[in-house]
Amino acid sequence: MIRYPNGKIATTCKPDTPQDSFKNRGLEFEDEINQTNAFYCQQNRAVIYKKPTPIKVVRVAYHTGEQPVITEAYFQQPSTTDYNGIYRGKYLDFEAKETRSKTSFPLKNLPTHQIQHLVQIMDQGGIGFLLVYFKLNQTVFLLDGRIVQQFFEQGKSSIPYTTFVEQGVEVMQGYLVRIPYLDAVDRFYFSSR
Amino acid sequence: MIRYPNGKIATTCKPDTPQDSFKNRGLEFEDEINQTNAFYCQQNRAVIYKKPTPIKVVRVAYHTGEQPVITEAYFQQPSTTDYNGIYRGKYLDFEAKETRSKTSFPLKNLPTHQIQHLVQIMDQGGIGFLLVYFKLNQTVFLLDGRIVQQFFEQGKSSIPYTTFVEQGVEVMQGYLVRIPYLDAVDRFYFSSR
Repeated sequence: MIRYPNGKIATTCKPDTPQDSFKNRGLEFEDEINQTNAFYCQQNRAVIYKKPTPIKVVRVAYHTGEQPVITEAYFQQPSTTDYNGIYRGKYLDFEAKETRSKTSFPLKNLPTHQIQHLVQIMDQGGIGFLLVYFKLNQTVFLLDGRIVQQFFEQGKSSIPYTTFVEQGVEVMQGYLVRIPYLDAVDRFYFSSR
Repeated sequence: MIRYPNGKIATTCKPDTPQDSFKNRGLEFEDEINQTNAFYCQQNRAVIYKKPTPIKVVRVAYHTGEQPVITEAYFQQPSTTDYNGIYRGKYLDFEAKETRSKTSFPLKNLPTHQIQHLVQIMDQGGIGFLLVYFKLNQTVFLLDGRIVQQFFEQGKSSIPYTTFVEQGVEVMQGYLVRIPYLDAVDRFYFSSR
């Protein structure tokens, strides 16, 4: 812990991606993961953040005494995965996706450069995985990046739901913690199975 | 390495933060670090990225067949440091700053929550540091996060240049690699000094 000169402890752990006000939607998978990460961070269990969406800023209006207003900008494709951080001393990196398919996860939902990034991370000794929310089945699974890599290299267009069930780890829904995926990380990467 | 079904190897490693076109400036410290990271990534030496600047999107215009245009948005304070990634199997996290002071680094340049974040990372077993470019001295130094933490906890307003010289590691300018800071990381964190 950090000791402040004035004795005050700052609360950090807030996500860099507040729910965008233009979207006007309910709580979604991404928000639940952000809440989960904030909880893990407050508990000092892990420090994991979602990276902000890259936005190319083209025009900014400056008015004296006011904060600058971006008046023209464009969403960009991120180069990496959405989430990364440190857990149990290890670098951890994952992408979270949701699908309405009941029987498989379509690989077209996962851009090639994100798979490439996960592979680079694993080659460097980090933990890399996919977290998939099957909306209609109401299940969430962790699937190790090496399995994703295999399906991709074999030119498959999707990963069957049964692969998630047999080779992944289900993330049980929590009360205090919405998506307690670190329990699945513990089981897959840290237990002597 | 990843093997593609069609034999093509994608080049990733590009930064998520292209030079913003509205800024109209020369190559700066941040861009040089981004280039360095892209080089390290291409060489498979490390996978380290700058996080995109968080931007709160308020209004988006959609026109059929065109990409959506953000017409109102605001820059936000990031919760964490600018750079993180994996190197030699370790989680690595740093903040890069430049100063025109010749004699010290003013701590007001470093928001409290960024120091708090670095401390959390170090407490979790990660590598955390500050990379400072002293513009007028034309030097770049790596300073371990624990030293930054000490100065902060003692209520100091700045860290003297001599501290960087005596307790930090100077990052020598490179030709192929602009800011070869991983050599400084090697010296400080991985050699048996």
